Amino acid sequence: MIYRHLRVAAFCVAVLMGAAGCQSPASPGLTTDDATALRAALNAHLAAANGGDAARWAALYTEDAVMMPPNGRAVQGRSAIQSWLATLPRITDAQGIALEVEGAGGMAYVRGTYSMRLTIPGVPAPISQEGKLLQIYARQPTGSWLLARDIWNGDSP
Amino acid sequence: MIYRHLRVAAFCVAVLMGAAGCQSPASPGLTTDDATALRAALNAHLAAANGGDAARWAALYTEDAVMMPPNGRAVQGRSAIQSWLATLPRITDAQGIALEVEGAGGMAYVRGTYSMRLTIPGVPAPISQEGKLLQIYARQPTGSWLLARDIWNGDSP
Repeated sequence: MIYRHLRVAAFCVAVLMGAAGCQSPASPGLTTDDATALRAALNAHLAAANGGDAARWAALYTEDAVMMPPNGRAVQGRSAIQSWLATLPRITDAQGIALEVEGAGGMAYVRGTYSMRLTIPGVPAPISQEGKLLQIYARQPTGSWLLARDIWNGDSP
Repeated sequence: MIYRHLRVAAFCVAVLMGAAGCQSPASPGLTTDDATALRAALNAHLAAANGGDAARWAALYTEDAVMMPPNGRAVQGRSAIQSWLATLPRITDAQGIALEVEGAGGMAYVRGTYSMRLTIPGVPAPISQEGKLLQIYARQPTGSWLLARDIWNGDSP
């Protein structure tokens, strides 16, 4: 059970940065359109996490994305990420703050914090999780950004 | 004690990628000199970790670096990072693999895995740790690279 909690806590990272847009000045290396698109990507992650649709969520990652959840091995590729996301318990109140949105060329990173509630089967009340995240995004030919590298960890000792 | 172990496990991230150089083809966005310098930066981290000198180690970070250890809050700035590193137990056999060295403009990231042994006071044998890391490096005017954003987490459930 503890393992499952940790796995969940970690994964939420992907979700989190929802609130990001309001706190992240654009990097000198990013255009205003880039920064807007990255914030939209973050909000999409949050919405997908709260919505609990693994396919919709996985579609926000690049085909060759690498997800690095705490307390487990890296998950390689969109298909494997979707399978991993499908094992997660119900997420609610996923929120995030993008403390930074920085980039150069077709690459950008988002650093932030996250929080969420997890409803674990057999546990009477939702469990709150808080942590930190670092994500690498890749700009697509259409100008949108997909999540390419994703890592996070929790704040609790 | 568990908390301390986790803290240590996490921090090692900074160290790890020592072996990186031999496995990371240069990114299309990085020159050969950049890739060589990034590998040198990683090796310096490993050497500093095994050497146990917090000041030398902290000097590998940018002045405004952010370190995000598992199971704790982010550590902001080189001075705070040095203080944090100084609390770590003895590290030996720190090794790392940089699975990727990618970059664009003056920004690069290293994704990899790490392992190390920690000698905890009161614990009879060194403890082995393994995990994953993602680091953002910033190119300096001299052409060297300093670690600007640093996050990692463990593989153990």
